[in-house]
Amino acid sequence: MCELLGMSANVPTDICFSFSGLMQRGGCTGPHKDGWGIAFFEGKGVREFKDVDASSDSEIARFVRNYPIKSNVVVSHIRQANSGRVALENTHPFTRELWGLPWVYAHNGQLKAIKKKELIHYRPVGSTDSEFALCYLLDQLKETYVKRPKGQAALFSKMHEILNEISEHGIFNVLMSDSNYLYCYCSTKLCWITRRAPFGVAELKDDDVQINFKDETTPNDVVSVVATLPLTTNEEWNIMNKGELIVFKKGEVVAKFR
Amino acid sequence: MCELLGMSANVPTDICFSFSGLMQRGGCTGPHKDGWGIAFFEGKGVREFKDVDASSDSEIARFVRNYPIKSNVVVSHIRQANSGRVALENTHPFTRELWGLPWVYAHNGQLKAIKKKELIHYRPVGSTDSEFALCYLLDQLKETYVKRPKGQAALFSKMHEILNEISEHGIFNVLMSDSNYLYCYCSTKLCWITRRAPFGVAELKDDDVQINFKDETTPNDVVSVVATLPLTTNEEWNIMNKGELIVFKKGEVVAKFR
Repeated sequence: MCELLGMSANVPTDICFSFSGLMQRGGCTGPHKDGWGIAFFEGKGVREFKDVDASSDSEIARFVRNYPIKSNVVVSHIRQANSGRVALENTHPFTRELWGLPWVYAHNGQLKAIKKKELIHYRPVGSTDSEFALCYLLDQLKETYVKRPKGQAALFSKMHEILNEISEHGIFNVLMSDSNYLYCYCSTKLCWITRRAPFGVAELKDDDVQINFKDETTPNDVVSVVATLPLTTNEEWNIMNKGELIVFKKGEVVAKFR
Repeated sequence: MCELLGMSANVPTDICFSFSGLMQRGGCTGPHKDGWGIAFFEGKGVREFKDVDASSDSEIARFVRNYPIKSNVVVSHIRQANSGRVALENTHPFTRELWGLPWVYAHNGQLKAIKKKELIHYRPVGSTDSEFALCYLLDQLKETYVKRPKGQAALFSKMHEILNEISEHGIFNVLMSDSNYLYCYCSTKLCWITRRAPFGVAELKDDDVQINFKDETTPNDVVSVVATLPLTTNEEWNIMNKGELIVFKKGEVVAKFR
């Protein structure tokens, strides 16, 4: 099992608090000792940090935790290897360009026989089923649309169809972003919360830390966080349904497909 | 003008010393204040750090300088913006997957009218002429070879042909790697040095630092460093010729094309 963490916000927001909880699960309060990765979008630019060490004692993780990188969209992952050896090229998130946009993707689960599918445009660099599935997903989108379609609904619906198809191969919980949208697909386990004014105090489940979001935000901030399991003990998280795709933009839910 | 720095080594080697000199040129001893980036290969995995701040006062640059990441291939760049605004998506190095390999590329120079060329498979994410040129180069390689050809000479020669074609658009000094090879193309300015036993002491030009490589290496280490301008004062650097492509593997020159 791996754990996913994503964020979508209407203002550049630092994810240190949530990341701090997630990192504890990497080798400390959880069994996810085979690396971790986090991608921060700044406009269409992506800043990525990855490591094959357990996140709870990674020097880069410590740096990221203490350095408040502000971002509108974040995709993060901690890994317990089950397909593909422990190596940097097998560490999520994975990135590919499609339609001049940087698609960043992280997957939790295992996919049987996914590598029997034929790939057209994209090739995996590492040996994980996860990266293969990303290549297949983007291949299908590129085959369907030469450019990014203007109507969002058609694109989201097509994505949902491909995500459903891939999830027939096993467990396929996914977070991905093209810099504007955060796409969250639940195959078995994914939950989310939207925080907005009036902001309260949150307590981390995995770390003896609490934060008063009021001190960190302005009244107009809208921040959604998506994770494999709730990260805080005193807030109500929304549990996603199996086969559900939720799309966030600037912190708000903009589409739901079941 | 931007500055390039690359490394190819037969054992994982840290580039802190050379990077330290390069970073001083970013806003301190040099005019390159519009961001910097460095990519470290670990096998087929890539670890990348980028920043839009001047490298001499970037917090991430300080982290990279002090954290000895060991790598066989490094591609690095500091930028003085002349095409494309100062933004993360316009910061080198740029990366694309081709034939299941991660191609990392950094460019020094300016290319006129390069954007009039037609792109097939790859699209730039940012607005620089540099990233457009990478897309064009990989497009041409992908059109020529569906898979990576087994004979290296044919591939290197094709690359040289495309690099020459692009350089007709202006100044095109390039460092790029596919994880195995370091490709260095000189349009106007690029130099290199190979260090091997017996290792001596080197003195950085831009920083009051010297290093005794003997303390940092084993007798079998072979390390080549490529840069826009020599980084040390007491060693003899090889100046590349205009239109020359030199390919390094594991620290050694494996091919030269004029």
